[in-house]
Amino acid sequence: MSLETTFPFLYNYWPHVIALIATYSSVVYFVNTKNQNTEKQVENKIKKNNPVIIKKKYLSPDQEAEVHDDEIEDVDGAKISSALPEDLPHVPLTTYKRYSDKEMIERSAAFYDDMNNRRTVRFYSSEPVPKEVIENIIRTAGTAPSGAHTEPWTYVVVGDKDVKASVRQLIEEEEEINYNKRMGVQWTTDLMPLKTNWVKEYLTTAPYLILVFKQAYGFNPDGTKKNHYYNEVSVAIATGILLAAIQKAGLVTLTSTPLNCGPALRTLLGRPNNEKLMILLPVGFPAENCSVPDLSRKPLEEISSWF
Amino acid sequence: MSLETTFPFLYNYWPHVIALIATYSSVVYFVNTKNQNTEKQVENKIKKNNPVIIKKKYLSPDQEAEVHDDEIEDVDGAKISSALPEDLPHVPLTTYKRYSDKEMIERSAAFYDDMNNRRTVRFYSSEPVPKEVIENIIRTAGTAPSGAHTEPWTYVVVGDKDVKASVRQLIEEEEEINYNKRMGVQWTTDLMPLKTNWVKEYLTTAPYLILVFKQAYGFNPDGTKKNHYYNEVSVAIATGILLAAIQKAGLVTLTSTPLNCGPALRTLLGRPNNEKLMILLPVGFPAENCSVPDLSRKPLEEISSWF
Repeated sequence: MSLETTFPFLYNYWPHVIALIATYSSVVYFVNTKNQNTEKQVENKIKKNNPVIIKKKYLSPDQEAEVHDDEIEDVDGAKISSALPEDLPHVPLTTYKRYSDKEMIERSAAFYDDMNNRRTVRFYSSEPVPKEVIENIIRTAGTAPSGAHTEPWTYVVVGDKDVKASVRQLIEEEEEINYNKRMGVQWTTDLMPLKTNWVKEYLTTAPYLILVFKQAYGFNPDGTKKNHYYNEVSVAIATGILLAAIQKAGLVTLTSTPLNCGPALRTLLGRPNNEKLMILLPVGFPAENCSVPDLSRKPLEEISSWF
Repeated sequence: MSLETTFPFLYNYWPHVIALIATYSSVVYFVNTKNQNTEKQVENKIKKNNPVIIKKKYLSPDQEAEVHDDEIEDVDGAKISSALPEDLPHVPLTTYKRYSDKEMIERSAAFYDDMNNRRTVRFYSSEPVPKEVIENIIRTAGTAPSGAHTEPWTYVVVGDKDVKASVRQLIEEEEEINYNKRMGVQWTTDLMPLKTNWVKEYLTTAPYLILVFKQAYGFNPDGTKKNHYYNEVSVAIATGILLAAIQKAGLVTLTSTPLNCGPALRTLLGRPNNEKLMILLPVGFPAENCSVPDLSRKPLEEISSWF
C-alpha cells in the first residue's frame, strides 16, 4: 500500500492534515477545559450557599441542637468541627409563659394588627432615631433559630453620614450600569413611564442603614472552619424577625437586595470573605406625605390549606 | 520531501496514526459535550430557584412595587406577566403609628424580651390549641414583604389526627433511610450516644403542624405563568414573622426542614407542582418538664458592626 498512489493529496499535504487535526483537537480540548471550569464555578457557588446539602444529604436539618456532630468533612475535604459540643447538657425550659385561650386569641390578633400595618416605605425623613432602639432591634434579630445554632449573621449598621454617602455612591453607580448597559432597549423603554431609576435617595436620608450579611461558613476558636448549615434560610428567617422588630418599634424600612454591589460593599465595610451581603434595610421614620403603592394582601383562604 | 524516507514509521502506519488522533479528538469532544450538559443542568437548577436573577440581572429587586414589568421572558422563553399593573396608584401611608423616643425604646426592649424567651422545643403536650390562634398566626405570616409583592407562600395546617399520622409515617420512613442507609459507618457510630434518631414523636403529639411551601412560580388569571422573584428568601422572611407570631401567641415550635420528604408530603397534602416544601413547624404547648439544650446566644457586639 503506497500513500503516494492511493492518496496523492495526503502524500503531498500530510503535515497540513496532521496540523489541522491537532489544532482541532486542541481547540476542542481547550473548550472542554473551559467548560469544566465554568461548571466547577457554578457548582462551587451552589456549594457555598449550603455546603452540607450537597454532600451530606443525610444530616438532620433541625435547628439549634439536632446536629451535634463533632468532626464532619467540608466540601473541600478539610476536617471541620461542629458548633455544639457532643455533651451539651439539657436544662428545664424556664422562659416559657403560658396564657389562657382567651389571652392567646387576643395576643395573636393584636400582633397580626401590628404586623398588618407594616408597609414597605421608599420615602424617609432624616429625623434621627435613638441608637438604643436600633440596638434592641438587632438584638431581637439575633434571637432567631439557625441551622445547628450557628447564628450565621452579621448586621452592619451605618449611621455615619459619610459612610452612608459611600454606600449610596457604590449602589447608584452599579444601578446606573444596570439601567443603562445591562438592560436592552425594550427594557429601557418599558421602564421610562415608571418613577424608579438608579437614584436611591433613601440611602442617605434614612438615619440608619442595616446591611444583613450571611456567613457562608464560620471559624472555630482554633481557626478551623465551622460549617454553617442552612445559612441563607437562617439569615432570611432572622430578617423576618428583624422586620417585625422594626415595625414593633414604630419605624419603617424597605426590604431590598442590592444587585452586584455585594463584594464592593463588603470591602467598603471591612467584612471578611466568608460573609455575603443578602439584604439592605434603610431604617427610620416615613417622610411627611409619604405614599405607598395601593396594594392589598391575599386573604387567609388564599394562602392556606387546612386539614 | 518524501514521507517514506523522512518518517518510515508514519509511512507504514499512517492510517493507525490518523485513526488514533481521530479517536482521541472524538473522546475529547464527547467529554466536552457531556460537561456542557452537566453545566446546563446545574445552571437550570439555579435558574429554577430564581429565574430572574440569572437572566435579568438588571431588574431592581426591591420589594412590593419596584418591579412593574408587564411582560418578561421566562427561562423557558415563554412569555409571563408580572404581578402588578403598570398603572398601580400610590396612596397616602395611613397605617403608620408614630411613637415618642421613650416609647420606641420601651417597645423595642419589650419585643426583644418576648423574642429572647423563644426556644426551639422538641417535646409537646397534646393539649388542643384554639384554631383561631393558628388562623391569626398564619394571617400574620401573610403580611411579610415579597419580591414584586408576589406573596409566594402556601401554609398547609394539619390538625387532623390521621393526616398528622400520615405525615409522621412519611417523614420517619425517610429519616430511617437517612440514618441507616445514607450515612456511613462512622456517622452511625458517632450518632449512637446522641438521643436523636428517626422517631419524631412531636409530629403526632403537637396539636398542629404547619407546613410552609414556597411557590417557585405562580399563575395569572389567564393561566399564564407568573414569575415569583426571590421566592425562597421571601418565604424564609415570612417564616421569621411566623415564628415571632407563634412566640407572641404563647405557643412553641421547632423550625425543621424535612429532608427528601418534600415531594411525598406535597402529594399527600395535594399541593401542585409549582410548590416546594421548605419548612415544617409543629405548633403547640411544651410538654410538662420539657427540657431544652443549654445554649446561649451571641451578644450584640459579636453579631453587629457599627459605623
